[in-house]
Amino acid sequence: MLDKIEKSIILISGGMDSAVCAGLAALKTNQLYGLHINYGQKTQEKELQSFNLICEHYNFTDKLIVDIEYLTKIGGSSLTDSSIEISKGNINSEEIPSSYVPFRNANILAIAVSWAEVIKANKIYIGAMEEDSSGYPDCREDFFKSFQQTLSLGTKPNTEIRIETPIIHNTKKDIIGIGLKIGVPFEKTWSCYKSNLAACGECDSCLIRLRGWEESGNIDPIKYENN
Amino acid sequence: MLDKIEKSIILISGGMDSAVCAGLAALKTNQLYGLHINYGQKTQEKELQSFNLICEHYNFTDKLIVDIEYLTKIGGSSLTDSSIEISKGNINSEEIPSSYVPFRNANILAIAVSWAEVIKANKIYIGAMEEDSSGYPDCREDFFKSFQQTLSLGTKPNTEIRIETPIIHNTKKDIIGIGLKIGVPFEKTWSCYKSNLAACGECDSCLIRLRGWEESGNIDPIKYENN
Repeated sequence: MLDKIEKSIILISGGMDSAVCAGLAALKTNQLYGLHINYGQKTQEKELQSFNLICEHYNFTDKLIVDIEYLTKIGGSSLTDSSIEISKGNINSEEIPSSYVPFRNANILAIAVSWAEVIKANKIYIGAMEEDSSGYPDCREDFFKSFQQTLSLGTKPNTEIRIETPIIHNTKKDIIGIGLKIGVPFEKTWSCYKSNLAACGECDSCLIRLRGWEESGNIDPIKYENN
Repeated sequence: MLDKIEKSIILISGGMDSAVCAGLAALKTNQLYGLHINYGQKTQEKELQSFNLICEHYNFTDKLIVDIEYLTKIGGSSLTDSSIEISKGNINSEEIPSSYVPFRNANILAIAVSWAEVIKANKIYIGAMEEDSSGYPDCREDFFKSFQQTLSLGTKPNTEIRIETPIIHNTKKDIIGIGLKIGVPFEKTWSCYKSNLAACGECDSCLIRLRGWEESGNIDPIKYENN
């Protein structure tokens, strides 16, 4: 048992990174709160299902599902705008891929902070990875450090909330290793940006996931379309 | 005419502050974009109406209305949670009033930045006032400065967006003076937190508005319940 009853909010997209974050937070926190964001992405049904399975697995105290479908109205990303094609196989490119949703993590963290201030949660876990993030600017450690300062200035004086980014400098290979060690239920996670059935195996997110499993020397437990 | 076609997003709640911001931005910008946020507040119908009237008045290029009713689910404020009473007449108190919506301005600015990055707007105007803001932590200049840094770090390298807070150190009295000078249509604005008909004249927001008009030596053109 921990000395202090600590409340943590875990941002859970349903992917591997956030599942590993949930697993790591569960080792340190008594009360877990799951926050899932629907932002009009094409695979939101599968992601929501994974969110629910992960919260159940770790016996979460409460969960909140928030719709920010305004990102669909705003557009600018292949994830939320059906007129923009999802890039295929450019995971080694220097360019920010079309799946980048402008300033998404700031939108998501702002929601998490509002909730944290009301329920008096001390921590917000987010499974961002700087080096392995397709180059999204809002996945960089500097961004999160700056957001930490912004939240300290923008909340009540007695509010104390820490943004935790426990896997920020890990690779997919690393987090698969960590997850397997602490028993993260990877079979319940979802990464594909494109399909709502079996994973497509072709979008950026599938390619990054598959490369991670290959590098880790283990087998991904989820199903792919072409095998 | 300005040399450069500059696009500005103006956050317009429908109140006097944002109307003055719109008036100030209109002096400097060729293309105005209005952003209005419904966050489940009790007077959202009146505020939306004022937003539309102000955009029309200044001939906005485009407008966007975003629902973030998740703030109602999150609660913690008398503006969004009907079980919390709206404080009456404590505008001289040191305490943060019950109308404080946790981290609201960060939520709103994050949306504005997402939109700005897509439409390539250079500026986001927000009519926050530090000294005259009921003590909301997310109305302080330090908060906006920090948010500016966060947005620079969390958007694409070639994205350049400035948060403009032109009335941050003004009082209500000041902005009424400025607004009257540049022809802001105050009769189209709405401030009351409580009523959807005539303004209540009793909530924090009405009291602050009425005090401003009294101090400015002018007459508020909107109607109040008890006169």
